[in-house]
Amino acid sequence: MTAAPFPGRERTQVRRLPEKQVTDRVALHGVLDACRVAHVASSDPDGQLYVLPVAYARDNEHVLVHGSTGSRLFRALAAGAPTCLTVTVLDGLVLARSAFESSMHYRSAMVLGSCELVPADETLRCLQVLTEHLMPGRWAQLRAPTAKELAATTLLRLPLIEWSVKVSDGWPDDPVDDLDEPVWAGVLPLHSTFGAPRPAPDLTHPFEAPDYLSRWTP
Amino acid sequence: MTAAPFPGRERTQVRRLPEKQVTDRVALHGVLDACRVAHVASSDPDGQLYVLPVAYARDNEHVLVHGSTGSRLFRALAAGAPTCLTVTVLDGLVLARSAFESSMHYRSAMVLGSCELVPADETLRCLQVLTEHLMPGRWAQLRAPTAKELAATTLLRLPLIEWSVKVSDGWPDDPVDDLDEPVWAGVLPLHSTFGAPRPAPDLTHPFEAPDYLSRWTP
Repeated sequence: MTAAPFPGRERTQVRRLPEKQVTDRVALHGVLDACRVAHVASSDPDGQLYVLPVAYARDNEHVLVHGSTGSRLFRALAAGAPTCLTVTVLDGLVLARSAFESSMHYRSAMVLGSCELVPADETLRCLQVLTEHLMPGRWAQLRAPTAKELAATTLLRLPLIEWSVKVSDGWPDDPVDDLDEPVWAGVLPLHSTFGAPRPAPDLTHPFEAPDYLSRWTP
Repeated sequence: MTAAPFPGRERTQVRRLPEKQVTDRVALHGVLDACRVAHVASSDPDGQLYVLPVAYARDNEHVLVHGSTGSRLFRALAAGAPTCLTVTVLDGLVLARSAFESSMHYRSAMVLGSCELVPADETLRCLQVLTEHLMPGRWAQLRAPTAKELAATTLLRLPLIEWSVKVSDGWPDDPVDDLDEPVWAGVLPLHSTFGAPRPAPDLTHPFEAPDYLSRWTP
């Protein structure tokens, strides 16, 4: 972690706890690759803001998102409205000697900018990238999308140009005067795990759950 | 789950997959109580949107959030800027017979509105509610906040007036024509778990990790 500001990137300079800012693009990729759901902002003409969860994947230096052509969010994003896409991974709780210093371990990436439609000749490749990020190994097993499905889907990409990453992974940072407080302090790590696969009740063949499920990262 | 629209609540009527909308206030409370981090929107004067993760707790019919008095987000929220606070719990992956029908199990709550400062005579109680939601049992063990800490903290509440809840918890919804595709379908549940508590290296007494940690919900 470094505290170096982005030259000329006023909007993505972390102000609160700037020592937690990470300016390494590898870290940005790492946070984006570690998660499946982002929160994306849009605004209506009255200035009301909305934040919606969307599935996403990173495709090199873009984030891909897809949704229904009928979605208000996706219509606004497809029109190039400025947006913000934020991904947060919660890694633990930090129990300090005071409520004030108590905090969390997290990795968070924020991407500012405007989306653009994925060009038609990249649609299938980008849908494959999305599917393989969300459910690795699945694309090769599934039938190809139909023309009707493609027509019902808005596929967008947001370039990784203006972004920030913030990582909190330290010990409680209590002032010296608090160290003798009669209370335990430390970190309670938080993990995601997959449970056992639950077969759909309408399976028409006695398939085993595929091996690749055991290799997926929650 | 019901698909009944909110009368007069145009902005919180779910349009995509409206059958997943839940209009029961108990469900709203359930989603908010099941999570620790929300994503909150703000906008700058140029119309750029921001989405930031914040710790929160529900206090009856409000959501409480707190942050630094120096935070741009909290200054904008304290000034009454319209915002949106969204909480999403990811419960699993839904593996359908096509990429198009593949989806996720989730519970998501979106609250629209403007924050207000918590009145001074409710500050301590609300900080207790926040701490007890994030780290139950901890408030009674920790020293009281100092005047300096309180002065550095902006404590806000967002009323639960205009909101929506969306829950996805069904089986893959494949069209009949896809049921003979030669591929496993079902749900892969996703859970959060706590790891073993990691004591801070600067503990001055040989404390055991407190019993209440084992009762916390991840």
